[in-house]
Amino acid sequence: MSLNVALAMPSHTARAVFPPRSLEPLEPGLNLLSREPIQDFTTPEGSSLLAEADILITGWGCPMIDHDVLDAAPRLRYVLHAAGSVKHHIGDACWERGIHISSAADANAIPVAEYTVAMIVLANKRILQIARALHTTRTDVLAEQLFPDMGNYRKRVGIIGASKIGRHVIRLLAPYDLDVVVADPYLSPAEAAGLGVGLVSLDDLVAGCDVVSLHAPSLPSTKNLIDAGQIERMRPGATFINTSRGELVDQDALLARVENGDLYAVLDVTTPWVLPAESRLYTHPNVLLTPHVAGSLGNELERMAASAVDEALRLSRGEELRFRVKEEDLAFTA
Amino acid sequence: MSLNVALAMPSHTARAVFPPRSLEPLEPGLNLLSREPIQDFTTPEGSSLLAEADILITGWGCPMIDHDVLDAAPRLRYVLHAAGSVKHHIGDACWERGIHISSAADANAIPVAEYTVAMIVLANKRILQIARALHTTRTDVLAEQLFPDMGNYRKRVGIIGASKIGRHVIRLLAPYDLDVVVADPYLSPAEAAGLGVGLVSLDDLVAGCDVVSLHAPSLPSTKNLIDAGQIERMRPGATFINTSRGELVDQDALLARVENGDLYAVLDVTTPWVLPAESRLYTHPNVLLTPHVAGSLGNELERMAASAVDEALRLSRGEELRFRVKEEDLAFTA
Repeated sequence: MSLNVALAMPSHTARAVFPPRSLEPLEPGLNLLSREPIQDFTTPEGSSLLAEADILITGWGCPMIDHDVLDAAPRLRYVLHAAGSVKHHIGDACWERGIHISSAADANAIPVAEYTVAMIVLANKRILQIARALHTTRTDVLAEQLFPDMGNYRKRVGIIGASKIGRHVIRLLAPYDLDVVVADPYLSPAEAAGLGVGLVSLDDLVAGCDVVSLHAPSLPSTKNLIDAGQIERMRPGATFINTSRGELVDQDALLARVENGDLYAVLDVTTPWVLPAESRLYTHPNVLLTPHVAGSLGNELERMAASAVDEALRLSRGEELRFRVKEEDLAFTA
Repeated sequence: MSLNVALAMPSHTARAVFPPRSLEPLEPGLNLLSREPIQDFTTPEGSSLLAEADILITGWGCPMIDHDVLDAAPRLRYVLHAAGSVKHHIGDACWERGIHISSAADANAIPVAEYTVAMIVLANKRILQIARALHTTRTDVLAEQLFPDMGNYRKRVGIIGASKIGRHVIRLLAPYDLDVVVADPYLSPAEAAGLGVGLVSLDDLVAGCDVVSLHAPSLPSTKNLIDAGQIERMRPGATFINTSRGELVDQDALLARVENGDLYAVLDVTTPWVLPAESRLYTHPNVLLTPHVAGSLGNELERMAASAVDEALRLSRGEELRFRVKEEDLAFTA
C-alpha cells in the first residue's frame, strides 16, 4: 500500500528547498498528495491534505504540530524535516503520540563544516591578513616576516563539541597535517579515539590550540560557554571561529582581546544577530565577519530536500529512518 | 658503512628550512658532516665537505651542481632537494653522471592544494563577496538574493593539470558533493577514472565549470595556455583560481572579463610577480589577490625538510628513493 506524502512549510520555503525536480524521486513508490505545501493546518486545503497524509515533509517555518493538528491527522506516522533543528515545530504532542521524526541535520552540518575547514586553513596561513596587507601596500609583502608562525603544518586545532558539524570538521581535516583535539562532556575517550582525535578538557583545548572552533549547540547549559576566562586563556595569535550561536560567547571579552591585537576571529554569528553599525567587529583587521551564511544556502538547500526525500523512500521500502530524532536527543542538540 | 651527508644551500635557507630538530633523525644511521651548509662549492669549507659527501641535501638557492662541482665530489651519488623544482641547481652534469635526484615536490604540493580547496569552497559560496557586502553595508545582508546560485552542492570544479598539486586537490575534494573534472593532455581516461574524476578537454573544462583552477606547470608549451579565447569561454559567474604562474594566463583578457563583472578571480601569482601599484587587480571586488603564498611558507618548510631527511633515511636502510626525479620528467613538470 502506497504511503501518502504531504509537504508542510511556507510556500517560499517550498520554492527554495523543493524545486520540482527534487520531488520526482518520490513517485511511483509514494503518493505525493500535492506539490503545493500545507502552509496552515487549519485551512480547508491544509486540513484536507493533513487528513490523508501518512508522511509530512516539513521545512523552515512549518507551523507547530500540536494535539489539534494530530487530531486532524489520523494517518500521520512520520514527520521528515528538510532542515536541521526540529524544536520549532515538533512539540510534546508528536513525542507523546509516537510520531517518528527525522531531520536533515546531518545534511545541514556539511556546509558549516566546509566553511569551517576553509577558515582553519586560511587562518593558520594568515591568508586574509596577507591579502589585506597586499591590498593596502601594493608592493611585495614579505609574509613570513609579518607572520613567522604561519603555515598549516602540525598546528593544533581544537573542536569544541563533537556535534554533527564538529564530527564532519574532524572527518574533513583527516588528510591534513594538523593535530586535531576535541572537547565534549558527552564524548568518551574511546569515541574520540574512534574519530581519530584526542579528547581534552575545554580549558586545555582553549589554552593549547592555534585555532579554536566552536561547534556546541545553543542550550541553556552552553550560554556563555566561552566566557571572559576562556577568551583570556587563548594563545597569543590564536584564531577563534564561531559558526554556532553568538550567545555561547562573551562577545565583549572577545572584542577586547581582538583589539588588544593578539587574537583573530572568524564570526558567522554574533549577538545581536545583526550588529549595530558602530561595532568594531565590522572593521578590525583581525576579524572576518560573515552574516550567518555557513549553514545551508542556495543550492545547499537541495541537499536537505534530498535527505528528506531519501528518508521517505526508505519508509516506502519498509526500511528504518536513517536520521531519526528522539525526544531524549533534544537536551544535547540544537 | 654509514653514508656522509652535507647540506648545500644559503645559510638563510638552512635556518628557515632546517632548524636543528629537523636534522636529529639523521643520526645515528647517517653521518651529518656539518650542521653548517655548503653555501659555495668552491670555498675551502665548501670543497672539503663536498669531497666527503655521499648525499647532498639541497634547498632553495643551492648553486648549480655542474661538472666542476661533481669533479670535486668523488663520492656523491644522491642529491635530495628539500624544495620543489630541481631545475635551478641540477644540470646536465648530474643526469650524465647518473646522480640520483629526489625532490620534495610532493610535500610542496600540499599547501598549494590546501589553499586551492579553501578558495574553491569560499568561491562557490561567495563568502568573501558576502563578507565585503556586510563590511560595507553594516546591515543584514540577504546573501541568497545577492547570489542566488551560491552553494557547494553539485557545483562543477575543473582542475587543469593532473600535477602533484592537481592530484592533491582532487584527493582533498573527494568528500565534497562537487563534480570534479580534470583536463591534462598526458592523462589517460583510465588514470582519470583511478583518480575518481572525469577527463575532459581543456575547452570543455573551461566552458563547463563553476570553478576553474590552474595546476599546470610553467613550460614553454603552457605559456598563455589560458588565452583570451579560454577566458571568454568561462561561464558567467565562474571563478578562476591561479596558483601556478602568471605567464600561463592572458592577464589583460582576464582583467577585462573581471571588469565586465561576470568573472571572479583568486590569484596567488601574476605577471609581473609584483603588480604595478595602479593595477585594477588590487581593487576589483571580485578579485582576491595574494602574494605567492600558496606554496610552502613558515612551518610548511619543515614538511619539505622532513621529506628530504626521510629520503636520506631510506638510503641509509638500503631502500629506493620515494620521490626520485628523472631527467625525462622535466619536460612535463615545474
